Amino acid sequence: MKHEVARAAAQGVESGMTLGLGSGSTAAILIEDLGKRLQAGDLTDIRGVPTSFQATILAQQYGIPLVTLNEIDHMDLAIDGADEVDPHRNLIKGGGGCQTREKLVDCRADRFVVVVDATKLSDVLGSHFPLPVEVLPDAYRQVMARLAEMGAQPELRMAVRKAGPVVTDQGNLLVDAKFAAINDPAALEKDINNIPGVVENGLFVGMADEVLVGEIVDGKSAVRSL
Amino acid sequence: MKHEVARAAAQGVESGMTLGLGSGSTAAILIEDLGKRLQAGDLTDIRGVPTSFQATILAQQYGIPLVTLNEIDHMDLAIDGADEVDPHRNLIKGGGGCQTREKLVDCRADRFVVVVDATKLSDVLGSHFPLPVEVLPDAYRQVMARLAEMGAQPELRMAVRKAGPVVTDQGNLLVDAKFAAINDPAALEKDINNIPGVVENGLFVGMADEVLVGEIVDGKSAVRSL
Repeated sequence: MKHEVARAAAQGVESGMTLGLGSGSTAAILIEDLGKRLQAGDLTDIRGVPTSFQATILAQQYGIPLVTLNEIDHMDLAIDGADEVDPHRNLIKGGGGCQTREKLVDCRADRFVVVVDATKLSDVLGSHFPLPVEVLPDAYRQVMARLAEMGAQPELRMAVRKAGPVVTDQGNLLVDAKFAAINDPAALEKDINNIPGVVENGLFVGMADEVLVGEIVDGKSAVRSL
Repeated sequence: MKHEVARAAAQGVESGMTLGLGSGSTAAILIEDLGKRLQAGDLTDIRGVPTSFQATILAQQYGIPLVTLNEIDHMDLAIDGADEVDPHRNLIKGGGGCQTREKLVDCRADRFVVVVDATKLSDVLGSHFPLPVEVLPDAYRQVMARLAEMGAQPELRMAVRKAGPVVTDQGNLLVDAKFAAINDPAALEKDINNIPGVVENGLFVGMADEVLVGEIVDGKSAVRSL
């Protein structure tokens, strides 16, 4: 199903485009697909702007030329995943810890397309997924206290295959803040970003132009646009 | 057994000391023990210099005052773990990805004591454990190629609970370089650190003053000094 969604999103990619390359498993499939089309000559002259070390490594592996945000004049299209999507196409992102650079890249694109499966859809953000917040290492305790005052249950995200907490691609820490429900995501996005020590949070409000949803309908995988 | 070793190392800690606080599971037990002795009043006026986010978080949790390397005139004692130890007390460290700051701290101490269990002992370094090398993100591919030329099997360490590779406490990547045997650790330490893009590697040569080894002897846990 992830392949179906990735393929649907890939149809929007044309030769000559500058592309934001998302993170996560569906975006990884897309990057592989773009690389193969480049090698086959079906696609020419594309440039990728990676949202994470993951996207960078995959793009290098599949031979997609990369550029940085500082080098480009505009970005045609960004394609990225999400962890929770509401009916207004607002998102929670950051399960992979990459929300800071994802937001920088995705907001830059003329068109931002989100690829998810149907399990990520919810009526109210926060119902399923804790909100990832990237924090400066020296600030994690006071940020957690502030998030608790705002009604969240904050947890420092701990690592596996490395002692101590997860470290982001920028060298910071992650606090996962579980809210019962985020009724005003636009306000909460601003409030959290205003806490001293917060680098960025995983609320993406009013940014997605289209959400492609993979789902099983009558036993077959299908893709619909939200 | 880790508790026995931590307790043996803790006997060297006295009031008024500035201490390097190591990373890993045995060092974590030691930090907890020091914190409890501070709270009980058995120990006063100690200051810790953490080797990692893990040590920092534990020290904050257990109320051990922290100072940075830039603030201290000298460090009395550092206590830290290791992943492999040879008969000359040379070490491989970095399974927890903290070898860069560990080396900075441990080399600064008047006395550096290593705490391990007997499974970490080996006749020749590299027999059991790949050598962790911290690399700048832009340099990981060429560093891996150079390590392969030097006879290693290099692998980029991949993360769990975060998309893509493990990121160190300094914001860099880790290459685990498996050598069949490291016969001249002093030379290899220098050679690898001379590769462009390498920040630090996990060989600690001629640094450890004492290695405390926990083992089971006649069904009882015992600690001996190497």
